[in-house]
Amino acid sequence: MPRCEWINFLTDYGHDDVYVGVCHGVLARTAPHARVIDVCHNVPAGSVKAGARLLAKAAPHLPPGVFLAIVDPGVGTKRRAVAVQAGESVLVGPDNGLLVPAADALGGVRATFTIKSHEPPPSATFHGRDVFAPAAAELALGADPSKLGPVVPNDSLVRLPKPRVKITPEAIMGEVALVDSFGNLQTTIVGDASSMPVGARVMLMFGGRRRVAYVGRTFSDVASGKLVLYVDSAGYLAVAANGGNAAQKLGVGPGTELTIRR
Amino acid sequence: MPRCEWINFLTDYGHDDVYVGVCHGVLARTAPHARVIDVCHNVPAGSVKAGARLLAKAAPHLPPGVFLAIVDPGVGTKRRAVAVQAGESVLVGPDNGLLVPAADALGGVRATFTIKSHEPPPSATFHGRDVFAPAAAELALGADPSKLGPVVPNDSLVRLPKPRVKITPEAIMGEVALVDSFGNLQTTIVGDASSMPVGARVMLMFGGRRRVAYVGRTFSDVASGKLVLYVDSAGYLAVAANGGNAAQKLGVGPGTELTIRR
Amino acid sequence: MPRCEWINFLTDYGHDDVYVGVCHGVLARTAPHARVIDVCHNVPAGSVKAGARLLAKAAPHLPPGVFLAIVDPGVGTKRRAVAVQAGESVLVGPDNGLLVPAADALGGVRATFTIKSHEPPPSATFHGRDVFAPAAAELALGADPSKLGPVVPNDSLVRLPKPRVKITPEAIMGEVALVDSFGNLQTTIVGDASSMPVGARVMLMFGGRRRVAYVGRTFSDVASGKLVLYVDSAGYLAVAANGGNAAQKLGVGPGTELTIRR
Repeated sequence: MPRCEWINFLTDYGHDDVYVGVCHGVLARTAPHARVIDVCHNVPAGSVKAGARLLAKAAPHLPPGVFLAIVDPGVGTKRRAVAVQAGESVLVGPDNGLLVPAADALGGVRATFTIKSHEPPPSATFHGRDVFAPAAAELALGADPSKLGPVVPNDSLVRLPKPRVKITPEAIMGEVALVDSFGNLQTTIVGDASSMPVGARVMLMFGGRRRVAYVGRTFSDVASGKLVLYVDSAGYLAVAANGGNAAQKLGVGPGTELTIRR
Repeated sequence: MPRCEWINFLTDYGHDDVYVGVCHGVLARTAPHARVIDVCHNVPAGSVKAGARLLAKAAPHLPPGVFLAIVDPGVGTKRRAVAVQAGESVLVGPDNGLLVPAADALGGVRATFTIKSHEPPPSATFHGRDVFAPAAAELALGADPSKLGPVVPNDSLVRLPKPRVKITPEAIMGEVALVDSFGNLQTTIVGDASSMPVGARVMLMFGGRRRVAYVGRTFSDVASGKLVLYVDSAGYLAVAANGGNAAQKLGVGPGTELTIRR
Repeated sequence: MPRCEWINFLTDYGHDDVYVGVCHGVLARTAPHARVIDVCHNVPAGSVKAGARLLAKAAPHLPPGVFLAIVDPGVGTKRRAVAVQAGESVLVGPDNGLLVPAADALGGVRATFTIKSHEPPPSATFHGRDVFAPAAAELALGADPSKLGPVVPNDSLVRLPKPRVKITPEAIMGEVALVDSFGNLQTTIVGDASSMPVGARVMLMFGGRRRVAYVGRTFSDVASGKLVLYVDSAGYLAVAANGGNAAQKLGVGPGTELTIRR
C-alpha cells in the first residue's frame, strides 16, 4: 500500500476522557505526516450496529486512505483485530461486524488480514491505543496490510445480521437505527422518495402508541412542530419534528420498532 | 480569490452523527491542502440567532480565509445559499442572517453571491454535504466567489433583528443570548466595565423571580457559589456562579428576558 | 527551544461555545505551521484535579512539543501563568497544580517560567485566548521559555495534594477520580493485576451502600450487566459494568469515596 495522507477515525469513546486524544497522539508519533478526520466519537457505547451504520454512511464521502474504527465491547477477548482492504482504502478495527458495511460501501471486501500485536503486550481494555492506532499508523506509512498478520478467509469475517424490515401492502415495519443531535429518527428502511407523495398523511406506530406524520421532502414541508416522514440524505426513511426534537417528543431511541401505515 | 489555507467551520450538527465528519471529508476530497478549524458544532439546534452571535464573536480571532457556517432550519426550501465577502474572508452558508454579524465583525459585507448547485442535485436535507462544503472547498482552491452564482444585492441579504435591549436610569433590560458549558449566561447587553464598581450589589430579575448578584471583573471576585455580574471576554454583560453553574442554579437559558437593577 | 510541530491541547471549556475554536484560531494566526491535538475539552468544569490526572495519563502517548492546558477557576486573579519545561516538551497553563503530574510523567520539571502578558492587557476571564494560547504559539515558533518571563523556583510551583489512598490487610480505600463516557469509574488507587485473581468476588462500599463486583482483566470477564473490578489502561483500579454504565448504575461520580474489600 502506498503511503497515505488520510486517516478517518470513528469510535464510541466519547469526549469525556482522553481516549480519542491519546489515539491521535499515537498516530502523530508514528505517522506524523498523516491527517486525521474525526468522523464521529459518539457512537452509542458498545453499539457495533450503530457504529457500522454510521461508518458506512460516511465512508463514500471521506477521502480514501486508512479507516480506524473502534466500537469494541469484546476488547481483550479472543475476537480478532483485522485490517480489511476495500476500494483504495484499508479499514482497521475489531472483527465484530463493524467494518463490513463500510467496506461494502467502498466497493466490497478485497482481502482481510489479522493484526498481530507486537511487544509490549497490549493492555486488556484499550486496544485503540495499543493495537488499532499503531496498525493504522503503520498502514498510513505504507505498510502492506499482509504484513500485519495472517490472512482472514472472507467467509470467516464476522457480519452483522441484516436489519429486520418487513413490507406489506398496508404497512412498512422496521426499527429506529440512529438518532442524531437534532433528535431525528433514522430508520432501517430504505426509502423511495418517488413513491411518497408530499403532504400525504401516514400513521407511525411504536410501543403501543400511534402518531400522525406527513410525508415531506424536507423538514419545513410540514407545519412547525409536526412530524415529517422523509427520505434522509443517506437514503433511509426518517422521522423528524419540524423545528423540534422527534426523539424527545416521541420518547423513542435506537432499537425501537416502528410501523408506518398509510 | 487566492488559494487559501484555512476553513473555519461552525454548525448546529452536534457530535452524535457523522454530519461534521462527512463535511470534513468533502472538504478533504476537493481541497486537500486546506486546514479546518472546528469553531463550534453545538450551536443550539436551528438557532440562527445563537449561531450568528457565536460566529461573530469568534471571527476576529480566526485566521482569514473561508468561513463555512451552517445553521439552516430552512434547508431544502427556497432560501438562498450565499457566499459573503468580508475583509480578506468569504463566508459560506444559508441566507438567513447567520453570516452577517460575523461579516460585520470582519469589516462589513463587501459583496455577496448566490451559490448555484451543480449536478447531481443536492439532497433536500443535507446541504452542508451537498452545497455548502463543496462551495467552501472551491473557494479554498482559489475560485472567485463571483463564479459561484449571481450577485446578491446588499439590501436583499437577510438580516436578523437587533436584540432587544432597553436602558433606563434604574434598570437595564435584555435577554440571555448564549449559555456556555460552564453554565455562564451571556446577555444581549453590551457592557462597560468602567461604569461597574466591583463589589456593587445588583438585582437580577427574570421570569417573575429575583436574585442578588455582585459586580466583579472575574468569577472569584465574589464568594464561592455567589452570582457575579461581569463584562465577558466578548464585551457583553454576563452572569456566572463562582465555582458553579449559573444556568442550572437559576433555571434559565437562551431567550430568557433579564432585567438588571442597581 | 527549536520550532515544534505539535501543540497538545486540553481544557474544561466544553464544546457548547467557541472557546476551543477561538484558541485554535489564535494558534493558527500566530503559529500556522503548528498542528493541534485536541486531547480533551470536557474536563469537569473547574476541576484542576481531574484535569491534572487526564493530562498526565495522556502525556506519554502524545507527541513531544507544546502542551496547552487550561483548567483555571482562578482566571483573572493573582495566580501565575507558567511555562513548565519537562522532557522535550513545554507545558503552558495556570500555576494551580494542573501541569505538574503531566510534567512528572514526561520526566519531571526541568525549569519553570512565568508568562508575562504583553499589550493589550488580557481580558479578566479568557486567558486561554489572551495569555496561554499566545504563549503556546510563541513557543511553537521556537521562542525560548525563559523569554516569556522570570524563572519560577521549583519549590514555589503549586502542587496538588496526593490523592488519599489507604491500604489495610482487609481493604483498600480511595476515591473515584474520573468517569469516562462509558460510565467506567477510575479510582485513585494504583492497581497490580498480578495480585488480583480473575473471578474473585469483592465488595465495593461507598456512600453507605455495598455492591458485589468480580475481578477481571477486561469487561467481558464478568457476565453482562455485572460489575467488574480491573486495572485500567493507565494502571489504576477501575470499576465498570459489562455492557452497561457503572456510574449511572451506582449513582456515583468523581469524588465519591470507595472502599474495596475481599
